[in-house]
Amino acid sequence: MTGLFVVFEGGDGVGKSTQTKLLAEWATGQGLDVRVTFEPGDTAAGQLIRRIVLDPATGELDPRAEALLYAADKAHHLYEVVRPALARGELVICDRYVDSMLAYQGAGRVLDLDEVAGIARWATDGLVPDLTVLLDLEPEHAVGAIAEPDRLEQAGADFHQRARRFFLDLAASDPSRYLVLPARDPIERIAEQVRHRVQQELSAQAGKIDP
Amino acid sequence: MTGLFVVFEGGDGVGKSTQTKLLAEWATGQGLDVRVTFEPGDTAAGQLIRRIVLDPATGELDPRAEALLYAADKAHHLYEVVRPALARGELVICDRYVDSMLAYQGAGRVLDLDEVAGIARWATDGLVPDLTVLLDLEPEHAVGAIAEPDRLEQAGADFHQRARRFFLDLAASDPSRYLVLPARDPIERIAEQVRHRVQQELSAQAGKIDP
Repeated sequence: MTGLFVVFEGGDGVGKSTQTKLLAEWATGQGLDVRVTFEPGDTAAGQLIRRIVLDPATGELDPRAEALLYAADKAHHLYEVVRPALARGELVICDRYVDSMLAYQGAGRVLDLDEVAGIARWATDGLVPDLTVLLDLEPEHAVGAIAEPDRLEQAGADFHQRARRFFLDLAASDPSRYLVLPARDPIERIAEQVRHRVQQELSAQAGKIDP
Repeated sequence: MTGLFVVFEGGDGVGKSTQTKLLAEWATGQGLDVRVTFEPGDTAAGQLIRRIVLDPATGELDPRAEALLYAADKAHHLYEVVRPALARGELVICDRYVDSMLAYQGAGRVLDLDEVAGIARWATDGLVPDLTVLLDLEPEHAVGAIAEPDRLEQAGADFHQRARRFFLDLAASDPSRYLVLPARDPIERIAEQVRHRVQQELSAQAGKIDP
């Protein structure tokens, strides 16, 4: 019994949580067992890890330490949530996964991205999603984006541009495992395409199990 | 200006903190700037990381997550404490470092030790101590050891036997960087040998700087 592992990726404010919710509602209506989750932080340990990264008391965090903390969150999240759910045959829908770590660490331009990818691969023991839905959006159109950024905001905007580029590159490097959709499309149109693709994955999997 | 990085390693109850203190007192008396520190946990972030590993609320922690958390602690500790002190030319004396991580993860027998060593190398960006003093002791002679262990305690004893073996193997793999001393020797005799060796390292370093 193996479930299906579906991940939503993309920048802030592109609609990942909305689409996660819509897919989960549809799948539940289809009689599937669904586990909705997110990274980072969807375990007790993950909450504490997230607090270390965000807590001002931490001071400036070493970039390698930050990457290792995110990797630790992933390892524990797979162990406690994702793998058990997949082993029970559930549809696991996860808001952010390895791509977010790579895109943001890469956009930060401090660490070697191949090295960070190696750390992420070890942390996840190579578990890749069956399907990653990338909701792609020009950062200036994201919810909460600022119309006329000042200098500091412009640095942030450049960061998000680089992150977007990394997300697209990751999708391009393994197209069969990705569904890239323009996040400005109507919500229901996106949801319909996601459902269609998940339906295909489920059929393919059923075909493999029950030829 | 580069300082000297000295690490004490070995199991629990072998006298690392006593020897750390004696070396620091002597070096301060010699007019050296000394920074005494320890792993894991000697930063604000490190304290929180340690709490995650030890907190019962965490539940059972994924082994990879645990290794990654210890690695994150190391990365941040070097960034915030060790490297700045070395850059100021100080003598850094650290109670436990990478060897403890490797010995205990190795003794736990869950993870591939070469892989864990790779993670540790990345976390520390390859910073190795100038000198590691390994205080070697049969675990049954450690302070707090139990005379007649029951089954669970015996499992613990076997774990500490394996850890001791890893410590010795690490020392044997790079003998010029290690001073291995029997921890049952008199405290003052150990301290004298450590001082002698640190003195040699300081002279060698002075020779390199000022030929």
